[in-house]
Parts: sequence; C-alpha cells; structure tokens
Amino acid sequence: MNGRTMLVIGGARSGKSRHAQALAESCAGTLVFIATAQPFDDEMRDRIDRHRSDRGPRWRTVEAPRSLAAAVEQADRPDAVILVDCLTLWASNLLLAEEALDAPLAELEHVLARGRGRIILVANEVGLGIVPDNALARRFRDMAGTINQRVAASVDRVHLVVAGIPLAIK
Amino acid sequence: MNGRTMLVIGGARSGKSRHAQALAESCAGTLVFIATAQPFDDEMRDRIDRHRSDRGPRWRTVEAPRSLAAAVEQADRPDAVILVDCLTLWASNLLLAEEALDAPLAELEHVLARGRGRIILVANEVGLGIVPDNALARRFRDMAGTINQRVAASVDRVHLVVAGIPLAIK
Amino acid sequence: MNGRTMLVIGGARSGKSRHAQALAESCAGTLVFIATAQPFDDEMRDRIDRHRSDRGPRWRTVEAPRSLAAAVEQADRPDAVILVDCLTLWASNLLLAEEALDAPLAELEHVLARGRGRIILVANEVGLGIVPDNALARRFRDMAGTINQRVAASVDRVHLVVAGIPLAIK
Repeated sequence: MNGRTMLVIGGARSGKSRHAQALAESCAGTLVFIATAQPFDDEMRDRIDRHRSDRGPRWRTVEAPRSLAAAVEQADRPDAVILVDCLTLWASNLLLAEEALDAPLAELEHVLARGRGRIILVANEVGLGIVPDNALARRFRDMAGTINQRVAASVDRVHLVVAGIPLAIK
Repeated sequence: MNGRTMLVIGGARSGKSRHAQALAESCAGTLVFIATAQPFDDEMRDRIDRHRSDRGPRWRTVEAPRSLAAAVEQADRPDAVILVDCLTLWASNLLLAEEALDAPLAELEHVLARGRGRIILVANEVGLGIVPDNALARRFRDMAGTINQRVAASVDRVHLVVAGIPLAIK
Repeated sequence: MNGRTMLVIGGARSGKSRHAQALAESCAGTLVFIATAQPFDDEMRDRIDRHRSDRGPRWRTVEAPRSLAAAVEQADRPDAVILVDCLTLWASNLLLAEEALDAPLAELEHVLARGRGRIILVANEVGLGIVPDNALARRFRDMAGTINQRVAASVDRVHLVVAGIPLAIK
C-alpha cells in the first residue's frame, strides 16, 4: 500500500471490503478493524460476530456505528493499520439517528489529516442508479455521495473496485 | 481543458457539475451556462436562481429545458465556453413532454460537430443499479443511456467522475 | 482482442453488448452467440429473433437460459469465438428457477479455465445504486455481483464500458 490514507470505493458485492482487508494485511503493523455496522437484532449480531471471527486473530475489532472520528483517533498510532468498514453504513446510522453530517464529517477529515498510522476507509458508491422514489433514500444518497467526495479529497489514494478489480483513480 | 467538446459523466453527488464548472472557468472566453432544469414550482425556481447567483457574474445563464440544440447553437461563438448541465434532466423533460429523442439528439450531435467554441456537457450515469420496477423509469434509463453513448461518441473528451475524482476515459 | 477469455461489464444501455460483439467480429474464427435471454412470451420471442437476424449470417446462435457451462463447452473449439450475452440474465434465470449458484458457477469457471477457443462474456453491473427495497432484488444483486467477481478473476481481460467507451481494467 502506497500512501498513508486510502479510500476503497465500490458497489455492492464488488469485492471492495476483501480488497481493503488484503491491503491492510499486506502492511506491517497492528491491525484494527472499525466496524460501523449496527447490531439491530440477533441475526445482525451473529453476522457481525461471524465476520469478526473470519478476520482472524491478527485483527482487533472496534464497533463505532456513529462516533467514527473518535474511534479512529483512539486507534491511531504510528504502527497501527486501521480499516474502517464502511462509511456508507455510518451515513445510514447518522441519518436514522437524525444527526447532521457536517460536524461528524469535519471531525473525520481532521483525524485523517493528522493521523499517524495507516488508515483505509471503505465506502459504497450508491449514486449510479435511477433517482430513488422515496425522499429518505434520496437524502441518504446525497449524504453518501458527499462523504465519498470529501473523504476522497482528504486521503492520499483512492481505489475504485469493479468486479473485484481495483482501479487506482487517485 | 484539452479538446473543444467534452462530456463529464458521473453519478448523483459525484462532483461532476463542480468539475465541469471548474474546467469551464479555467478556459479563457465568455462563459455561458445552459440550464436544462425546469422550474415546476417556486421551490425549484428558488434553487435555480440560487445556483445562478452561486456561479457568479462571469456566467451568463440560458434556460433550455427542451430546445437544447438551438440554445447551444445560439450561444456558440469562437470565444464562447458553453456548459450544458445536464443532459439527463433534458432527457427527463423530453420524456415528460412525450417528445421522441431521435430528432433532438441528432440536432445536438450536429451542433456539437460544427460548433466553434468550447462545449462541455454534463450527464448522469443512471444505468448501474437494479432494473427499475416501473416502465417509465426503464424508458428514462434507456433514453439517458442512449444520450450518453451518442454524445460520448460525438465529443473529443470524456471524463468519468467518481467521488469527485475525474477519470479521463476518452 | 488480446487474451483468450474476456469479460465485458457495464450498465444498462452502456454499449457493452455492441462492444463485445465488435470485439468478437474482429477475431478470425467461427462466431457462436450464446443467448441467456428466456422467451417468456411472444414479444420476447420476437425480440430474440430480431436480435438474431440483426447479428447476421456469420453468427450461429445457441440458447442457454440456464445450462450455460454446458453450452459454452459444447461450442468451444480452437477456432471458435464464443460470445455469452449475458451473465446477469443467466443469474436472473437461475434465481427464478430457484437454483443455487454455486455449482453452475464453478462449472462455468472450469469451462473458462480449460477452454480452447476465444470466449467473451457480457455482464451487467447492478450494484452501484441504492440498496433495493425488496429481498428478491437484493438476492439478485448479490448473485450478479458474485458472478462478476468470480468471472472477472477467471478471465484474461476485463473491459468496463461507460457511455460506449471501453476501459481496460484487467
């Protein structure tokens, strides 16, 4: 992995998380997984736990459905390799909690700018289909797109993943 | 900006309009903004007016919800830098007015081919999600895709914008 | 066309099929079109027949809505140029027939690996929009994405087509 901070963006089932995880594991350092998925029910809790055990013992997992910047900051050390998966679920959590995006996103940019370890962030691209019928989905799409633009501008590298294949676009 | 004519394509909130506007403003010449947005109500009218004032005094704005080729032709002079934003709203306007696409699109291709100034056109990519349930959305998606292909074939350069980052694909 | 096997991926109305067909026709050899479209009614039957006649007499057409690997294997000869259009309809056919994806996809990978002629496969990217509301569409999206990743990993080359313009991404 070249560069200290990186965004990996792709569609659903594009292989973006697997690519990001492989990049992180190729780095020397302490691996920290910051999960934004929120366990609403037992099934979701089971899935999160299964993913955690799939990642194996090299990874430490932190759950941060909403306070993402704080979680990244706390994990950030010169020898850390931090993987945030994913920014789009984070957007969804903020939206459902009726929190505005401005302050949390500015904090995240700040943490990315002054970070010391390696930080890889995963995001969904959700804006390439038809305009959604319902207003909440449109707001979500706007939030996700805003996050993607702002984080892409903040990081050193951006990979777009299509059908499992990464394209370096920054 | 290299090339006389250019298509900037991207998803919702991808930063495509901002990128296209920055490209236009980097050119010497008289800036003309051709807006295809249609003010159906006061809220929409307010938004259009706000965007216009955001662009600042260097820009002259022309509204062309449907007669796009004519508007481009009229603005086209050797020293003009024309920004059309966007082709996908134009498709939507034609569809709602039950106008066929063939003749208007052929006219636009003709104007692009013989144009004298610089012309930058913005379009949405809307075909990378699930097939829409309703027939009108499917027709719209087909129209938008047809426009994108035909205009991409007609212009000198194409940029795909993902998360604010332009990729030169032609 | 460089490489023996190739995936052409793109959105709806992106020009992916036309690009794939032009690539196939640029190769010397016997052209075989493997159609996965399923004629549910007379209208669909008419469309399939019209496409077949549009392709012209150089092409032999085989219909394989579900048994895709077998159809490719049977057509595969050292001088064959096989075009499969498309993998995403195939996914849809398997889903509607309530067939699991694992075995058919493994068979297809096997056929691609040991093939003797040229094989070009077309697929839709459907994962770049908003998460669909209904569960069947989400399953379909997962299947399509899984196929795209696995086939992209199996073939020599991948082209992503945007607005009719191919990007070589592998």
